[in-house]
Amino acid sequence: MTQPLIQTMTVIGVGLIGGSLVRALKAAGAVGRVIGVDCDPENLQTALELGVIDEAAASLAAGVCHADLVFLAVPVRSVEGVVAKIASHLPAGCIVTDGGSVKLELVRQCETLLPAGIHFVGGHPIAGTERSGVAASFAELFKGRRCILTPTAVTNPHALHMVRQLWEAAGSRVECMDPLTHDRVFAAVSHLPHMVAYTLVHAVAASAEEEENILAFSAGGFRDFTRIASSDPVMWRDIALMNSGPLLELLDRYATDLEALRQRVAAGDGPWLEQFFRTSKRLRDEIA
Amino acid sequence: MTQPLIQTMTVIGVGLIGGSLVRALKAAGAVGRVIGVDCDPENLQTALELGVIDEAAASLAAGVCHADLVFLAVPVRSVEGVVAKIASHLPAGCIVTDGGSVKLELVRQCETLLPAGIHFVGGHPIAGTERSGVAASFAELFKGRRCILTPTAVTNPHALHMVRQLWEAAGSRVECMDPLTHDRVFAAVSHLPHMVAYTLVHAVAASAEEEENILAFSAGGFRDFTRIASSDPVMWRDIALMNSGPLLELLDRYATDLEALRQRVAAGDGPWLEQFFRTSKRLRDEIA
Repeated sequence: MTQPLIQTMTVIGVGLIGGSLVRALKAAGAVGRVIGVDCDPENLQTALELGVIDEAAASLAAGVCHADLVFLAVPVRSVEGVVAKIASHLPAGCIVTDGGSVKLELVRQCETLLPAGIHFVGGHPIAGTERSGVAASFAELFKGRRCILTPTAVTNPHALHMVRQLWEAAGSRVECMDPLTHDRVFAAVSHLPHMVAYTLVHAVAASAEEEENILAFSAGGFRDFTRIASSDPVMWRDIALMNSGPLLELLDRYATDLEALRQRVAAGDGPWLEQFFRTSKRLRDEIA
Repeated sequence: MTQPLIQTMTVIGVGLIGGSLVRALKAAGAVGRVIGVDCDPENLQTALELGVIDEAAASLAAGVCHADLVFLAVPVRSVEGVVAKIASHLPAGCIVTDGGSVKLELVRQCETLLPAGIHFVGGHPIAGTERSGVAASFAELFKGRRCILTPTAVTNPHALHMVRQLWEAAGSRVECMDPLTHDRVFAAVSHLPHMVAYTLVHAVAASAEEEENILAFSAGGFRDFTRIASSDPVMWRDIALMNSGPLLELLDRYATDLEALRQRVAAGDGPWLEQFFRTSKRLRDEIA
């Protein structure tokens, strides 16, 4: 048998992302022993029973002290606290990486907190479903999907290469991007759409309280359109707060466009509306 | 052979909806001869070649003068002009119905313009794709989908029954609703979401002009979420204008919710954001 890519891997937060990565790596023979840590004991027990992890650690310190690689898959605002707790327990040469949707501030936090000889690599697999928890995890989640790594001037090249191989073993196509560009791009194509979807459901549901049976007709388009509003509230609270700069810029741009549309609907401006919809359709069809 | 439900049917606007209804009725043996009228000669020729219609009429008058039933499947703001042109050419007892997404104003227009002895029934099949034109039509489009009919105090019961049978033959589940309730419900579950999707694509694309390659990362969630922004711009211009009252009310409600969200993101109010996302998730999961 060939040596696995990683002998001992610790996953902190054994949910949809953490669980799916381990399943994929195990299926690929890329990992030896997997230790899990999770703030939800029930979820951790499920991970053990499902065979996703080989061992459930009782504490962060106990979980990471023999790890060759630590994967952080907790909500992005929990990363700093977790890293502060594990920093002094990590063995020399350990690689720490994450799967968070926000990178600039998170990468800065980790690079600041981790001591010399511990190698941090920021990562963001572009995959997920609106479900959460280890029971929702599956080995094929990352297959054919992009994974963005966000190395900086201080990133160790060997660690970066190792993390790249890890995601490739899970089936991902790996690309590198600087952390700020990452945060701007994903504010636009992911974070803003989630804010829009959550708000749409909120506004329509308030309307539904007044109008009987309104949601009985919300099958089809509305249900598909708002699927992302089923995503984990804690995860999205953290993303909204941690990427608030780029997100607020886009929210303002979006609100300005929406107000322009509202004014033209009120004014009955057919040519403007047709042009607006036509432009959006063309742009949307270009990415299809 | 048993008698078809309708001997001669004229479809004005032989696109996705008109074409699909005829295909479904022909498959069910529910229609005899089908005459098509369309402002796009090329689309009309395609309808003829595909066998969707049996005859292409050269004018509205020629198209409707022998019709037992006329189905109007043109953009909602074109209905009034079409009905004004055909009103004096319809044979006595003819049933006129439509498939428009807006009902209150449209039903009033048709009831006002059509002479005694011509029976109008407002309708709205809850089906469609983001594609348009007869080439995109297919017999199964309405199968298992709702179709809303919007009878008023002056609707002829026999004509209503006939139109109900028509949609049932096409596979739809028929329900009746008053026109104003219809317009309020669909402003919420369909018209507002389309405005939101068109605006989202617009705002993100403007951002993409500044940030290179942004749309390369827009696969997956963003592509699915914005699919409805590929819908026909003329159709949606008309819907926005003709249902502007209920739509503006919802746009204002939505903009208020969005501004509240923006303020809480700017203020870093985690508990509020989590609660907001949690409420939306719960409401969304209830309709899933």
